[in-house]
This record gives sequence, C-alpha cells and structure tokens, in this order.
Amino acid sequence: VPHDSLTHLRSAVDRHLQARLATDQDKYLTVGQEIADLYAVAGPLLERGKRLRAGFLAAGWRSFGGTALAPEEIGAGAGLELFQLAALVHDDLMDASVSRRGLPAAHRQFRTVHEERAMISDPEAFGAAGALLLGDLLLVAAQSELAGALTDPATAAASRAVFEEMMAEVTVGQYLDIYAQSAPWAEDPDEDLDRAERVIRAKSARYSVEHPLALGAAMAGANPTQIQGIRTVGLPVGEAFQLRDDLLSVFGDPAVTGKPAGDDLREGKRTVLIAAALKYASPAEAEHLKRSVGDPALTEADVEEIRDILTSCGARRHVEDLISDRAQRAEAAINELALAAPHETFLRALAQAAIARTR
Amino acid sequence: VPHDSLTHLRSAVDRHLQARLATDQDKYLTVGQEIADLYAVAGPLLERGKRLRAGFLAAGWRSFGGTALAPEEIGAGAGLELFQLAALVHDDLMDASVSRRGLPAAHRQFRTVHEERAMISDPEAFGAAGALLLGDLLLVAAQSELAGALTDPATAAASRAVFEEMMAEVTVGQYLDIYAQSAPWAEDPDEDLDRAERVIRAKSARYSVEHPLALGAAMAGANPTQIQGIRTVGLPVGEAFQLRDDLLSVFGDPAVTGKPAGDDLREGKRTVLIAAALKYASPAEAEHLKRSVGDPALTEADVEEIRDILTSCGARRHVEDLISDRAQRAEAAINELALAAPHETFLRALAQAAIARTR
Repeated sequence: VPHDSLTHLRSAVDRHLQARLATDQDKYLTVGQEIADLYAVAGPLLERGKRLRAGFLAAGWRSFGGTALAPEEIGAGAGLELFQLAALVHDDLMDASVSRRGLPAAHRQFRTVHEERAMISDPEAFGAAGALLLGDLLLVAAQSELAGALTDPATAAASRAVFEEMMAEVTVGQYLDIYAQSAPWAEDPDEDLDRAERVIRAKSARYSVEHPLALGAAMAGANPTQIQGIRTVGLPVGEAFQLRDDLLSVFGDPAVTGKPAGDDLREGKRTVLIAAALKYASPAEAEHLKRSVGDPALTEADVEEIRDILTSCGARRHVEDLISDRAQRAEAAINELALAAPHETFLRALAQAAIARTR
Repeated sequence: VPHDSLTHLRSAVDRHLQARLATDQDKYLTVGQEIADLYAVAGPLLERGKRLRAGFLAAGWRSFGGTALAPEEIGAGAGLELFQLAALVHDDLMDASVSRRGLPAAHRQFRTVHEERAMISDPEAFGAAGALLLGDLLLVAAQSELAGALTDPATAAASRAVFEEMMAEVTVGQYLDIYAQSAPWAEDPDEDLDRAERVIRAKSARYSVEHPLALGAAMAGANPTQIQGIRTVGLPVGEAFQLRDDLLSVFGDPAVTGKPAGDDLREGKRTVLIAAALKYASPAEAEHLKRSVGDPALTEADVEEIRDILTSCGARRHVEDLISDRAQRAEAAINELALAAPHETFLRALAQAAIARTR
C-alpha cells in the first residue's frame, strides 16, 4: 500500500535524523556548550520536511531490487533531507527570507539567540553567521550519511557520482538564480524565459526528483540504461514540482505553505511565471511588473495587483499548462519503465504528490 | 630530501587542483555561462595556498607505509586544500575581511563582478551570496576528492571518520569563535582565556595539523595506537601554528601575510593573545583593550597603540612562550614515534615550517 509505505519511510527517516543530530550534538558539545544552539535550530526545521526526496530515493532503490526500509535506503534518504535543509538555510539567508516550514528562517532564529542573551556586536551579522555555519554543518552531515549508505563496493562509485553531481549542480544553479535576480531584464523576454527554465532544471528539478531517483537506482545496482530511464521520469516531475512551487509562492495559502505569500515577488525571483508574464502581458503591465518585482516593500495590495496581472495576462495559465504537460510526460515515462506493479504504484503516487501538492 | 619532497608534493597537488576545477567548470557551464565566475574567483585563491595541510597528510601517509605521490596522497591532499579554501571563503564573509592570500576576499571579488557588469540589486548582497555559494561548491568538491582518495576498503571507514570529524569540528569551532566575539567580556579573564584556547583547538589546531596527519596515517593503514601517536604530534604543532597566526595578524608584515595588519583587532577576534592581555594588563589598559578590540574603525595609529599594550603587558611574550612550549612537546612526541629517518625528517621539517612561519 503506497500510503503506508511512505508513512513507514518517513518515520524511519525521522528517527534516523533525530539520532544523528543527537549523536553529533553529544560529540561536539565538548568543544563548547554554545554549540547546542546549532542543533536547537536544526532539529525543528529538519523535523518538518516533507521527506519528498527520501521518497524518490526509496522509489528508485526499490524499483531496481533494493529492500524497503533497508539501512542504505534510510541513510541515503536522511542524507538527502539533510542536504535539502542545508540548501534551504543558505537560500533563506541569501534571499533574506523571513520564515521556513512555518518557523522563523534559521538566520532569524540565530538573531533571536543574540537578542535574548543580550550579546554585543551586530545581531544581523550574528544571525547570518549562525545560518552560514549551520548550513555548512548540515552539508557535512549530509555527505556523511550519503557516503555511509554506500555499503556495496560494486555500486558505490556510480552512486557517489550521482550525489556529487547533484550537490554541485544545485549550487551552481543557485548562483545562476541570484545572478538572474541581479541582472537587468533582457530586451527579449524569451531570453529571461530561457534562463528561468535553466535555473529550475539545475537548482530544483534535477535535485529534488531526478537525482534522488537516479541515486536510489544506482545504489540498487541498476544499469546505466535503467538509470537513464528513471531520470526520464524524474526531470518532468521535478520541473512540474518547481513550477508548482512558483505558483504556490504567489497564489498559495501562507497558512498551508508556511511561507508568506508574495516573498518570491519581493525577493525578485525570476521564475518562469514572471518571465512568461513579461512575454504575455501588455507593455504597460510588463513595465509595472519590472518595477514591482524585486521591491522588498511590496504591500499585500501590491501583491494582489501583481497576482491579477499574472492571471489575466495568461502567465498563470501558461505555467499550469506546463505542469500538465510535464505530468503527462512523466506518466508516459513511468509506463515506459514497465516496473513491477507495487513499485510503479509507489512511484506514481510520489510523482502525483509532488505535482499536485499544496505546500 | 625533505625540501624536494614538499616541492614535488606541492606541484602534484597544484596540478590536480587545476585539473579538478577545469573539469568541474566544463561540466557545469552547461547550466549557464555565468557560473564561470565561481571558478574565476576560486582558481587564483586556491593557487596561492601554502599546501600545509596536504603536507601533513603526506607526512602521516608516508610515515605508515604510504607511497609518496600516490594518487591517494595527492587526491586527499587536494581535498584538504579545497576544504581549507571553503572554510576561508566563508570565514572571510562572516568576518567581513577585505583580503585573503594577497587578493581581495571572495565576497569582495563577487561584489566587483556586480559593479563591473552594472547589475541591479545590492552589490554587497550579491557579493555575499557569491561567496556563500563558492564556499558550498568548494566544500562539495573537497568531500568528493577526499572520498575519492579512499581506494582501500580496509581503511576507508576509519579514514572517512577522521575527515568527517574534522569538517564538523571546525564548523562548530567557528560558531564558538563568532559566539565569543559577540559575548560580553567575562568578569574573570581566565574564562575568556579558556574559551580562546578551546576555539583554537577546535577551529584551527586539530583541523590544520592533527586531523590531516591522522587522516594520512589512517589511509595508510596505521593502527589506532599509531594514529593516536601521530595525533600527539599534531595537536601541539597545530596550537603553535594558530598562536603564530594570531601573532602574525597583529604584528606580521602585511606585504608577507597577504592580509592587512590589525584585522583580527578590528574584527574583535577573541584570540589567546587578547585574552592573555586582559589578564596581564593594568586595569586601565584592559579597559582600553575592551573598548578598542572589535571596533572596525581602528586606525593604523590605534592598532600601533594596541600593539604596544600587547607587548608591554607581557601578552605577546606569553604567546611566544606557549609556542615554544608546544614546539618542545611536538619535538618530544616526534621522537616518541620512532619513525624511519626520512619520515621523521619530513615531519619535523613540516612542523618547524608551520610553527616558525612568517605568513
């Protein structure tokens, strides 16, 4: 039963992550009691992950003969969740995001530590440094879990290549993203659209879905053709996942997403949604968007006005159509794989959860 | 001949690092041409490292039977150098340092990219994001090189444990360091001194010398007693190395160190030197230090005045004495190891270079 499978996986990954943090904290408290702060910030943020990447890893692993809930599956799944949080903590710092997973973003939590203890020095700088170091610490723990899960020498090298590519690619993709935010708008809207599509592939689609699936498959000993096959499922699911994310961050319910609506707009994210709007909106509307997107002072009314433009010009519809197209491609690719029935059901359920999600 | 040994090692590590960066850049340019910036900043900074950590790794490796210039030695040495640069790039960002290895610090180089290309958005924020991502990318590459160097399944797990501990420990040590900078001065100067000593052990001494030696030894198949023995050399050498660093950053020649003199003072680093001065200086001098240390606006004359206090109160002498003590302990520990003559000579030469360095 796919629902049970995912629930069991989540519990096992959660327990593993808690144990990992507890062990690390005990070990490093000898350096100084102060470092408990790092684990106090990490724990609740880590707890609230959707375990989507662990799920895709398990789907890849099980589809090619890996045993459900084997230590390798749990460890690698935990590693992906740690990496995800590392990336989020650093992203939120760069984007000056206020909240994450319904909690204050890590750099805000460290700022609060500073304020509550009446420390000297600049609270913003302390908050930023705390988040920077927490991200580094999570990145080290992620690699440790992933490397530790490669117990089979026959598949270790190929598996390691997958997660190293994933980690490097999301980092360079993130650079492309901040670069895009800082670049003047292109004369030709198709240029911005092309860049937005490259950004979501590198920094999100491949890393959230395609690489986890490929890693699980590689760990289970899938051959290169099989790994390529499951990548063909992963890329469209990942693109749909990120396009959904872009819609949710503008049109989603903050009570459900755990992030204020409109943050992407205030941060000036050059999403496919925005790039499409610049292409489809009237010149006056496009000018309005160029002036507004990236303005940190946008009010709720400003955001509402932008929402109206994004809807009326057809950009929202365009993104929904892209999501449907990617969902169909993913469906076709899943059929192509001809997996055993329970694995196909598990993979399809995860893909649908990623694409149709509300948070 | 130890001098030749180190020269050959440096060349081999340099070539390996250049090849690694070139391969990565080619691979990730497909994400976007913009990411060439990351490699353009990394290359020259990486080139200018002293290769001290690669040297200690080689000393540990060769002392227990590893072949000089074997791919494992070169790869792991390169991994340590990448990790070192990752840590420096993030440190400089947190400390708002201006320069590094005689070049502008990474975040300043990314700020220059922003300015030269007439980008929109805040240049400081872009510079910070660039350095944050570059550090992440180097950290991923470091782990990749280190993991790739563990070719012997019999020693891989023990070796991996060493570098994972190194990476986590330096990160939590760094948190303790920024925490110390932000904490009010303690009533009892011995408390600050104790914390300063814990900071240098965790964030520098063990990571710069002890862990590289232990990693090389573990990779070569040294037994736990032997690894413990070489750690006994590494800790005092590492402490002396960091204490020398603290002295150089206040009293060193900027033309030689590649960093402005007095930066540690402006950044408010709570070094052993400063903590000792608070203990030994007169109450009036101690008050002056507490007011001055951490003031980013210190002039060269202010720095000169602090130098005079640090010298006249005996703190500088105290740190020199600590360095001598650590050098003697290291010497005794090297003798205790009873290594074959060429390995002992190589290790001793490296230890002396680390302790007596001028940059």
